[in-house]
Amino acid sequence: MSAQGPTLALVGATGAVGTVMIDIINGRESVPWGEIRLIASARSAGKKIVVRGEELTVIELKPEAFDGVDVAMFDVPDEISAEWAPVAAARGAVAVDNSGAFRLDDEVPLVVPEVNAAKTADRPKGIIANPNCTTLSMMAALGALHREFGLQELVVASYQAASGAGQDGIDRLYAELEAVAGKGLGSKAGDVRAALEAAGLSLSDTPFAGTPLALNVIPSAGSYKGDGWFSEELKVRNESRKILGIPDLKVSATCVRVPVVTTHSLAVHATFSREVTVEAAHKVFEAQPSIVLVDDAENGRFPSPAEVVGGDPTYVGRVRQALDFPNTLDFFVCGDNLRKGAALNTYEIAEHLAPTLG
Amino acid sequence: MSAQGPTLALVGATGAVGTVMIDIINGRESVPWGEIRLIASARSAGKKIVVRGEELTVIELKPEAFDGVDVAMFDVPDEISAEWAPVAAARGAVAVDNSGAFRLDDEVPLVVPEVNAAKTADRPKGIIANPNCTTLSMMAALGALHREFGLQELVVASYQAASGAGQDGIDRLYAELEAVAGKGLGSKAGDVRAALEAAGLSLSDTPFAGTPLALNVIPSAGSYKGDGWFSEELKVRNESRKILGIPDLKVSATCVRVPVVTTHSLAVHATFSREVTVEAAHKVFEAQPSIVLVDDAENGRFPSPAEVVGGDPTYVGRVRQALDFPNTLDFFVCGDNLRKGAALNTYEIAEHLAPTLG
Repeated sequence: MSAQGPTLALVGATGAVGTVMIDIINGRESVPWGEIRLIASARSAGKKIVVRGEELTVIELKPEAFDGVDVAMFDVPDEISAEWAPVAAARGAVAVDNSGAFRLDDEVPLVVPEVNAAKTADRPKGIIANPNCTTLSMMAALGALHREFGLQELVVASYQAASGAGQDGIDRLYAELEAVAGKGLGSKAGDVRAALEAAGLSLSDTPFAGTPLALNVIPSAGSYKGDGWFSEELKVRNESRKILGIPDLKVSATCVRVPVVTTHSLAVHATFSREVTVEAAHKVFEAQPSIVLVDDAENGRFPSPAEVVGGDPTYVGRVRQALDFPNTLDFFVCGDNLRKGAALNTYEIAEHLAPTLG
Repeated sequence: MSAQGPTLALVGATGAVGTVMIDIINGRESVPWGEIRLIASARSAGKKIVVRGEELTVIELKPEAFDGVDVAMFDVPDEISAEWAPVAAARGAVAVDNSGAFRLDDEVPLVVPEVNAAKTADRPKGIIANPNCTTLSMMAALGALHREFGLQELVVASYQAASGAGQDGIDRLYAELEAVAGKGLGSKAGDVRAALEAAGLSLSDTPFAGTPLALNVIPSAGSYKGDGWFSEELKVRNESRKILGIPDLKVSATCVRVPVVTTHSLAVHATFSREVTVEAAHKVFEAQPSIVLVDDAENGRFPSPAEVVGGDPTYVGRVRQALDFPNTLDFFVCGDNLRKGAALNTYEIAEHLAPTLG
């Protein structure tokens, strides 16, 4: 790693998304970086992680850690990003932040490279934001359709994975599944709840709104924001508008948690300003390298989260023309919320910046 | 059961829905029937079942079984209903059919008692149809809103339970859960599939489109009907139009199977001809005896399938005004697909008929 090229830092290298990020970097055929630097909290500093065949030592998050860094990717909670992304920027790095801290800041571009890569050039704060994972799961598909048909309205319902709530969410779902499997539960109200409590899984500890997730779906995600809306739903609306550059895009989203480990899915009802057919939409999807179309209705083959998890693309299927709404498509989309929904998109932004830096 | 009153027959008394039907009849405070007759295939004839404290012997399905019957409820597959409901009607019974055989027949009313009970009077074929379970799960809520605000458009995404595919569906989900629990699966594509196959659960045997349901969601339900649409989605559209009496109602539905045992949920985006507020909608729901409103966003309390399964009402929550669509509400609704979604609604039709018969 003594080759020429800009220096990349990864802040949050030992977290859930950071771990996926290292997996992505290791899987790249080549990287444009002269140096890769792993940064984490004092607790994780000193840990050794192999990156592209070289053992790197995790260093502690402090201002000097950013000296000489060209791109600093942040995979940390909102409050850490809010404090440290400006520090990295002040030391000359471009901060690419995967938290919610800067996404709706007018001076921070919100970027999905295949949709609005050019926005990365205009970054007055030296910070570029990565969208929320739910929004990202459908953005490649919607960006491609928007370019061709002019998006106007969006009604979406989500099927969100447990890992959207981090490693705690994954661990909780696994623990709940073990507590209910083999017990024939789910046909009487509260029997799942009782089984969890009997297994010592208190509903006051769960990251899922005090509600069982095993053998259940939960109609809320994120935090309550008033007027009946939860944060994940408002993110889908506000971030879609900003990424697609459609400030008056009409959006209604219902975000629902489902007992899936990783990969968010969305049922999308999208209305355009121009006429759209299934054939034309299929062509748009097939022309987009980051989309895999799995849409064989005759044989019942469509994407589903457990079948596509771990992959980089956005998977699209069930594309059909709405029977009663003009210029409208209904479709189903799946994307790995830890990869394209988080680490991968952040890394793609960094890759896009690399030739302009260092 | 030698009291006065009309005679009720239950065809399919030993099946999954028939069993729930007997549970419902046993749970009623009083019943209007002079006699209750249990009918099933020759294979189940002779079986003894206790109904309201009296042991009844299941009799074989044959034309004479309907002699003296006033209301015959059919909880059997489409092809059995298609053959036998007319036989019951020819012998003088009103056939109340829970299959798909007659739902869209112009001479057969499609009835949800709290929405369109008066339609039961106009039954030229002597047959009344019970709607599909997915449609039924939201119909009490939509019927109440329609009376007040005038429904025009509907975009829905479903979260459908395994028991929508019958006892096979329930058994399959339980078996899949046992095969994956405790194994830490779901973060690599196909690892759930491999675990099922290793446990001897062939994907060619599943009622769920050749796709794992544990740790997954499956974006298709029912059979393929062309142009990208599946039967469950077309039923939601066509049956909603007929029940609500809105022949030009605009409907787009996406039906998705989720790893829940029983109780269908739907995310509903409904547009009305008149102005609608959350407060007005709450009042409408609270005034409807068959609806339970659970909508405490501040404390994150909403209905979810595992928490309401086994109950008779339709549960509604997450009611909010769409931010960008005029006269539009978004909400989430749950209903037990074996009770209100099937047996209960059929029985309520029979109860509604009782005073007019015998």
